[in-house]
Amino acid sequence: MANSKFEYVRNFEQPDNLLPNTWIVVRIDGRGFTKFANKYAFEKPNDRRALDLMNAAARQVVTELPDITIAYGVSDEYSFVFHKSCSLFERRASKLVSTIVSTFTAYYIHYWSTYFTETPLSPPLPSFDGRAVCYPSVQNLRDYMSWRQVDCHINNLYNTTFWALIQQGGMDALEAEKMLKGTYAADKNEILFSKFGINYNNEPEMNKKGSVIFRDYELVEPGTHNAAAEAENQAEPVQPSKSQADNERKRRAKARIVVEHFDIIKDEFWDRRPWLLSNKPGKIPKET
Amino acid sequence: MANSKFEYVRNFEQPDNLLPNTWIVVRIDGRGFTKFANKYAFEKPNDRRALDLMNAAARQVVTELPDITIAYGVSDEYSFVFHKSCSLFERRASKLVSTIVSTFTAYYIHYWSTYFTETPLSPPLPSFDGRAVCYPSVQNLRDYMSWRQVDCHINNLYNTTFWALIQQGGMDALEAEKMLKGTYAADKNEILFSKFGINYNNEPEMNKKGSVIFRDYELVEPGTHNAAAEAENQAEPVQPSKSQADNERKRRAKARIVVEHFDIIKDEFWDRRPWLLSNKPGKIPKET
Amino acid sequence: MANSKFEYVRNFEQPDNLLPNTWIVVRIDGRGFTKFANKYAFEKPNDRRALDLMNAAARQVVTELPDITIAYGVSDEYSFVFHKSCSLFERRASKLVSTIVSTFTAYYIHYWSTYFTETPLSPPLPSFDGRAVCYPSVQNLRDYMSWRQVDCHINNLYNTTFWALIQQGGMDALEAEKMLKGTYAADKNEILFSKFGINYNNEPEMNKKGSVIFRDYELVEPGTHNAAAEAENQAEPVQPSKSQADNERKRRAKARIVVEHFDIIKDEFWDRRPWLLSNKPGKIPKET
Amino acid sequence: MANSKFEYVRNFEQPDNLLPNTWIVVRIDGRGFTKFANKYAFEKPNDRRALDLMNAAARQVVTELPDITIAYGVSDEYSFVFHKSCSLFERRASKLVSTIVSTFTAYYIHYWSTYFTETPLSPPLPSFDGRAVCYPSVQNLRDYMSWRQVDCHINNLYNTTFWALIQQGGMDALEAEKMLKGTYAADKNEILFSKFGINYNNEPEMNKKGSVIFRDYELVEPGTHNAAAEAENQAEPVQPSKSQADNERKRRAKARIVVEHFDIIKDEFWDRRPWLLSNKPGKIPKET
Repeated sequence: MANSKFEYVRNFEQPDNLLPNTWIVVRIDGRGFTKFANKYAFEKPNDRRALDLMNAAARQVVTELPDITIAYGVSDEYSFVFHKSCSLFERRASKLVSTIVSTFTAYYIHYWSTYFTETPLSPPLPSFDGRAVCYPSVQNLRDYMSWRQVDCHINNLYNTTFWALIQQGGMDALEAEKMLKGTYAADKNEILFSKFGINYNNEPEMNKKGSVIFRDYELVEPGTHNAAAEAENQAEPVQPSKSQADNERKRRAKARIVVEHFDIIKDEFWDRRPWLLSNKPGKIPKET
Repeated sequence: MANSKFEYVRNFEQPDNLLPNTWIVVRIDGRGFTKFANKYAFEKPNDRRALDLMNAAARQVVTELPDITIAYGVSDEYSFVFHKSCSLFERRASKLVSTIVSTFTAYYIHYWSTYFTETPLSPPLPSFDGRAVCYPSVQNLRDYMSWRQVDCHINNLYNTTFWALIQQGGMDALEAEKMLKGTYAADKNEILFSKFGINYNNEPEMNKKGSVIFRDYELVEPGTHNAAAEAENQAEPVQPSKSQADNERKRRAKARIVVEHFDIIKDEFWDRRPWLLSNKPGKIPKET
Repeated sequence: MANSKFEYVRNFEQPDNLLPNTWIVVRIDGRGFTKFANKYAFEKPNDRRALDLMNAAARQVVTELPDITIAYGVSDEYSFVFHKSCSLFERRASKLVSTIVSTFTAYYIHYWSTYFTETPLSPPLPSFDGRAVCYPSVQNLRDYMSWRQVDCHINNLYNTTFWALIQQGGMDALEAEKMLKGTYAADKNEILFSKFGINYNNEPEMNKKGSVIFRDYELVEPGTHNAAAEAENQAEPVQPSKSQADNERKRRAKARIVVEHFDIIKDEFWDRRPWLLSNKPGKIPKET
Repeated sequence: MANSKFEYVRNFEQPDNLLPNTWIVVRIDGRGFTKFANKYAFEKPNDRRALDLMNAAARQVVTELPDITIAYGVSDEYSFVFHKSCSLFERRASKLVSTIVSTFTAYYIHYWSTYFTETPLSPPLPSFDGRAVCYPSVQNLRDYMSWRQVDCHINNLYNTTFWALIQQGGMDALEAEKMLKGTYAADKNEILFSKFGINYNNEPEMNKKGSVIFRDYELVEPGTHNAAAEAENQAEPVQPSKSQADNERKRRAKARIVVEHFDIIKDEFWDRRPWLLSNKPGKIPKET
């Protein structure tokens, strides 16, 4: 039984390679996580275990896919960034998205019992969807990252106040919503402080800033690198020599993958870590 | 801190809605499963536990996504078919692919210990990639399904003979490969029978035919339906009335989701199950 | 000066091949034709010369691109249909659209002086834009064609009445618009007849039905062919033998390309001309 | 006769908007121009009338579409560049391509008799196809332009030598081809000079460099602008104020559109004309 008669169906597969020389962001989101969070009684406004689990799964994704240069997560979403010179899977959108979503999901399920030690998972299981978006310039990419971090800030300030009104203020959801309608950030800070003695600035960094994951090398001196400009000048993926590539692979493999809660909107974060935009591994810090 | 300054980055998201009135097949494949199978010492040529796990995960995908009308799996791959009238997620390719890949992966990890009771998973975890392809006509769709099932047959006959030569014939992989080079199906059947007393026809149906998953209703009499022609005449998704839709949803929810190992190349399979192509739930069989 | 250094820029070209086994419609539209029609004082509601020019240009497009099976035009738009088995330019959208738009424009400019004998063209010249759309089934394609012809009818009835009110009724545009607001077809017919003695049925067929262009063969007996069903059963382009292909090419080349003003909504038009959907040339009518 | 029944066919139209913040190049090519050139006895290796006609048509395209910042043409091809901030037609590929192809074709036909005064056009008429490609960075765009100009140089040197061997050297095409096989640029220069006394450097600039079309303003001093870097820093289309936009529109409209034969590979061309990359109109030169 030869298969040639049916093989024509392969011609219906359509290419989905993403435009070269653009930054690829794959963002994944939890599906139906409001319901899911209720089922497992996530703490409000932030469940430490749930965020740690997200970070642990994302860290594994970054570990297994060295083409990812940085990842940023908040709540039930995570964004993974491929350098604009990346040629993984020939930049096919469906391959990139499905691989990240699958790897992330696998670790989320696998690590669940580590973080939620007392509530085993049962069907329907948590799952994630994802999509890929291309950003042509460093500025566009950084604006994307800033967008997500500002969103984190806005949501967390709102949620912190909202749940304080409910948990400590005895309001119900409708009352809290009504009270917050039309308020500015300063108003919410004021409510938190005057009513509940909460100084928002002292809230955990992870809640206020989200989490950023990257390979860590020695910081460079401020003002010595213009990472963005250098990145823009790379018109196409330069093929490093074999020994260079080997060397880079080794340094990348040696680098520690860290989960931090830094401000990624300001220049400083990027300027002191030029490897994030250049895709050239930095110097491995000396152990102390 | 308003977010409006950065929100323009949403404009870089590009639509990926699939052409209406075409059958959507999402096929997922295990990533690096040769290595993975070795790590967990999968039995050759077919590991019953691994196939049962694939089927269990796929069955859950079909359960959670009622828009899937049929799924077909073999080895470490599974194809999920959405009816041409499906409008789930507005037919966005990345949503459809990532949701299926994520749900499948979640259950694969979750059910692992049920099927592999003695070998717990450890990183790197198994993962899957996927893609969506559109098929305009019933014939194209059936040819796709036939292509996968013929592939299953060809590979399984080869693998069965290859591993018999090694496991029972004492050959090494190179010798077995050399022996099989250029042979036809009849030759392989003959080797199996004369050398090892194996009648290929008696091999397990799951190995020979793969697995097909669908909602089960009462079979119709042969010759009473031309499901393909009826499907072709539907030019666009007809909006059923609310009560009709409710009724259909209930019948679909009541239907048993079965995992079978049928011939899906011949007409009979499709003609006796007109609901697969019409997307109208059939009659729930009476319990006995 | 070798060019290899810059040739990488070709990698930015992205494929745009249209899904196989779907009907391709390329529709072109006049750009800014309201202004253009004023500049050359087109007669209202229909300028015979302008429509004849459109038809002449479209006829040449059909002549030069034998892969087009049928074309339909009304006002300043024209739709060209490629058979679902068409593989011209590997079905690349930009190639198909640009070739049709360019060929059409060339003849529109070239033939202008034949139809507008007294008003030579001057910059800015008329131009057209276009796009390609895929239709998976015969029903979708026919519904597309019907959509355009119904649109023709609705617009022409409106315009005929509107301009009668102005040209014969002495109204200005605002008054005519106001009078027609909310009227049904029957109302407009009544206005035409009672006020101006115009029986809409007696209006020129070209104005009422638009123009349809195709290769003409001998009509088949009604009821002997189900062209749609036959077309649906073709799953993929069948490669005819060389002699068959030669024969078909010759018959196609011999066929007269006609411009008619038929009802293309009803089945009869399609059933008696099975070659339109089958893409197999019919019988050349005997000369008389 | 309402049209709502058929209107669903609009849902099959799929968006083709090009990625924001990327340079769009629409390149058009003559279809079957080898044959066409023979039909009208184009002079070899370069027909002055044909090139002038190409330039005249392209100049009109640039005139009618102010969003085009620069165009480059050679032989029967022309590339039109839209600034990365361009939002014309919402950046829909088919609209951009078809509009350019149609406008170009219209003028090519219209101006034919101006340049080919003695050979009127007859069917089949010349036509063009086209496609759009996105380039994310200024470097990519300039490399694209360089690629075309290097191609022009390579082809023209070859053709000049080839036709000299035939027209003055009495060879036939096969002999000339054989003689040139494997030769380098220096060899061809040498053949031209030693055999025919032709100094390639003295050939017409248009033949050696192709033609570049742009709006002309006052040149800036070398070294005062880094147009590329400034362009890269624009992350998104900045909306100018209404008065600014009006002012820019006026200056753009006043600017002379010139056809030159400059070296567009070297930096100088771009550095002295910062408006090409910035999309901000320069200073209108004083009339003298």
